[in-house]
Amino acid sequence: MEGVAQEASSLAGHLKLGKLIILYDSNEISLDGNTSLSFTENVEEKYKSLGWEVFTVEDGNDVQAIEKVLIEAKKNDNKPSLIIVKTEIGYGSPNKGGKSSSHGSPLGKNEIELVKKNYKWEHEPFFVDNRVRKHFEDYIAINEQKEKIWLEVFKQYQLQYPEEYNQLTDILAQPIDIEKSTLPIFEENTYISTREASEKVLNAFAKSNISVIGGSADLSSSNKTYLHEQGDFNPTNYGGQNLHFGVREFAMGSILNGLSLYGGLKPYGATFLVFSDYMRPAIRLSALMNQPVTYIYSHDSIHYGEDGPTHQPIEHIPSLRLIPNLVVFRPADANETVEVYKTAFSQMNRPSAIILSRQDLPVITNPEGLYQNVKRGGYVFRFESKKEIDFIIIATGSEVYLADKVRSLLSNEGYSIRIVSMPSLELFNEQDSYYKESIIPSGVRQRIIIELAAPYGWDSVKGEKGINIGIDSFAASAPGDVLVEEFGFTEKAVAQKIKTYLNQTMKELSI
Amino acid sequence: MEGVAQEASSLAGHLKLGKLIILYDSNEISLDGNTSLSFTENVEEKYKSLGWEVFTVEDGNDVQAIEKVLIEAKKNDNKPSLIIVKTEIGYGSPNKGGKSSSHGSPLGKNEIELVKKNYKWEHEPFFVDNRVRKHFEDYIAINEQKEKIWLEVFKQYQLQYPEEYNQLTDILAQPIDIEKSTLPIFEENTYISTREASEKVLNAFAKSNISVIGGSADLSSSNKTYLHEQGDFNPTNYGGQNLHFGVREFAMGSILNGLSLYGGLKPYGATFLVFSDYMRPAIRLSALMNQPVTYIYSHDSIHYGEDGPTHQPIEHIPSLRLIPNLVVFRPADANETVEVYKTAFSQMNRPSAIILSRQDLPVITNPEGLYQNVKRGGYVFRFESKKEIDFIIIATGSEVYLADKVRSLLSNEGYSIRIVSMPSLELFNEQDSYYKESIIPSGVRQRIIIELAAPYGWDSVKGEKGINIGIDSFAASAPGDVLVEEFGFTEKAVAQKIKTYLNQTMKELSI
Repeated sequence: MEGVAQEASSLAGHLKLGKLIILYDSNEISLDGNTSLSFTENVEEKYKSLGWEVFTVEDGNDVQAIEKVLIEAKKNDNKPSLIIVKTEIGYGSPNKGGKSSSHGSPLGKNEIELVKKNYKWEHEPFFVDNRVRKHFEDYIAINEQKEKIWLEVFKQYQLQYPEEYNQLTDILAQPIDIEKSTLPIFEENTYISTREASEKVLNAFAKSNISVIGGSADLSSSNKTYLHEQGDFNPTNYGGQNLHFGVREFAMGSILNGLSLYGGLKPYGATFLVFSDYMRPAIRLSALMNQPVTYIYSHDSIHYGEDGPTHQPIEHIPSLRLIPNLVVFRPADANETVEVYKTAFSQMNRPSAIILSRQDLPVITNPEGLYQNVKRGGYVFRFESKKEIDFIIIATGSEVYLADKVRSLLSNEGYSIRIVSMPSLELFNEQDSYYKESIIPSGVRQRIIIELAAPYGWDSVKGEKGINIGIDSFAASAPGDVLVEEFGFTEKAVAQKIKTYLNQTMKELSI
Repeated sequence: MEGVAQEASSLAGHLKLGKLIILYDSNEISLDGNTSLSFTENVEEKYKSLGWEVFTVEDGNDVQAIEKVLIEAKKNDNKPSLIIVKTEIGYGSPNKGGKSSSHGSPLGKNEIELVKKNYKWEHEPFFVDNRVRKHFEDYIAINEQKEKIWLEVFKQYQLQYPEEYNQLTDILAQPIDIEKSTLPIFEENTYISTREASEKVLNAFAKSNISVIGGSADLSSSNKTYLHEQGDFNPTNYGGQNLHFGVREFAMGSILNGLSLYGGLKPYGATFLVFSDYMRPAIRLSALMNQPVTYIYSHDSIHYGEDGPTHQPIEHIPSLRLIPNLVVFRPADANETVEVYKTAFSQMNRPSAIILSRQDLPVITNPEGLYQNVKRGGYVFRFESKKEIDFIIIATGSEVYLADKVRSLLSNEGYSIRIVSMPSLELFNEQDSYYKESIIPSGVRQRIIIELAAPYGWDSVKGEKGINIGIDSFAASAPGDVLVEEFGFTEKAVAQKIKTYLNQTMKELSI
């Protein structure tokens, strides 16, 4: 019934994934009762319309019938196969067999007794019959033999195709070698959006790592995630590195998890940041299963503009940060984007979300030493002008440059201001207290966090007296520049907010 | 392509929604290029398999052909209709017609000139031909006449069916009258889960308000949202108030929005809290469109137990609170649940999410005066024992009772403790500062927020010295009681955490 299954099935049919076989346990029962309460599709016809081959086994207890159909299904390399296996849920239970009462709850002690009686099974729980034991023990020998043969074939492969063999064992051991690629360097004071910087990094990685595979949910020209020299993955070329997911965000995330679990691949998927909501359950599963999937989200704030509030992310950055074991990155400029990719691609057991701007941003960082800084999550982007720090501004993404402009304004008024760029709050929180203290000294209680997003989740660095400058409501349909003006994200408006805050806390601190 | 469309289409076919007609603009172009990149379904066959009638119009510019098919489609009252209308995107544009370059971006000035030339249209932008003006002006008269006739029919209806007429105009003016229902009252010191309390309230409201319509995504027996005396909405009874959505969470949310936008209805939908992620884009649209949809989410914490981390919400309560214009409720017990429903059902222009426990909870509140408290979002559940307050515990849902037990433990050590129940943080934040000060006095800086969820988003009530006691990682597969013990949510463990915190802040405050 679930949409994600439909999205994935449609794509599997399109890609002619002939090796995919699904056994569909058709017991006609859902938690609330018979599936006919809400589901009367002709499943066979539907899957045929999606380009699948469909088989039906009338009796799910007929193992030989299933085996026969499986052999048949394997023959067709051009279409995925759906095998509809008709079963009875809770089979053998006199009172709960074929009923929804055996779907979500255990049968219960009494009913289990009746089932055993029904099966004429008189043993204690967990009893294993010797015939079963023997059957499985026999398989150990059979499979050891199969493994021996396979290893021999693999050895032959090594001799005949040493290069391919090494490539395969390399990527199986570690899908991506970040040292292998020649990554771009961006010159200070040039202008480029971080989505375009991302395009260059991603292409550089993919060119020297065939394990990099991914694509976009029909937004590759907007997300800038197309791999220009790596070919398309399609029914006539399964060697291509570009996947066209179509407008199927949730299936995209789920497929990325599958690719990652398979091993030897470094999968990525992209869409607009606001559409991360469509795939949230897949992101959560990446995190729960420790899968180093890379999610790429462009169009990261109200700078997006005209498409309006349906397309402008507000709550999405903090809501992604809420998912345990997910690392969220938001680079400040093109060079940070390079280092963010290196850091994200180095994660071995957790997913990353890389959040990118649509609009051009000035290159404000120097690549030298930047990787060491970025991989620690946060670093001093601009040091204070005097020995004493009057206040610290902590910012991410496009707001680092904004913070720097605000600093120029307020430095003229004599303030000594430190600016911290925080490309990843999670990674910063993981640093030792010595490092954290060196970046955000505990003595400096006046801290301003600037992020064009819902202002939550910053407790760990905000301290007792800090404030957030963010946006907490839906925005509006207008060009990005107009919105930024209206919602108080110009350098002047932010400077004014900071001065009001300083006046207030100065008073409080002097009390 | 999107799963949500498949879920909704499948349900529409199942429900035999014969009045539904969809015109499917089939231009074979998506943003990244021809749809054949990722989409090769046989749409006609698929929709037929879902129980739809399917028509095709070969030329989308042939208005008469479309009209003819529309007339045909209206005839069948037993199946929804899909009209596949073949069109060319950017029709008339010499360079961009039929291409993806006319999908996501404006044509541009030069191309617009060429289109106008192609159409032999020599006017300035926004020019309206007199024949067009006349055509629309004629329609004013025609439609005024139609309205007159309709109003006459409606008057006749009023005369012949005065009761039904009043019912209809009443619910069109305001779908639900919360005063009309006899709501349950729960006795203190009895035990009942808030999902079961919710069942009683919801049934009471639905019995006296035919506008209450809703259901669950195949979890009504777990969410406890079935309306026992209101009948099922199905192809043989469109008068039923119970909708069976099937395992289609996202479509459920989207359908609730549709029902709410239609007017005269008070729609609700339910699933487990962790599955709110599946429908997040629909919740966001409720909020953005100011629709008072009610979302009901049961199984609200790791108390859920055995089904494991895939089913245990961690980040979901704070992530729902992040959505602008959504009111999130988490009642502490059965009586609070009643008042939460009254408050949620009184919202006229924003959605609500009601978060409920699976496990039994003691009834700890007295209904008297409770509504006034709950609708203000937070209130003093237990007053301090002395004039001075040593610290305030702020809690939600099942943690209010936990807080009360912790209070008993620590009162024995001489502490004077106030407990605030906070069924809705959003509503509390909206109160005037006088009320807020009366509940959480600014002088009391030692504040402990207890919520069995990711500990973020509490800045507004936490103050400078407060702490959160929450859970920030995935839990594990074990019975709820074991998890609560392991993750430190017993009264003893919480009391210990509070004492450690108190020692620390006492030291800080004395410095």
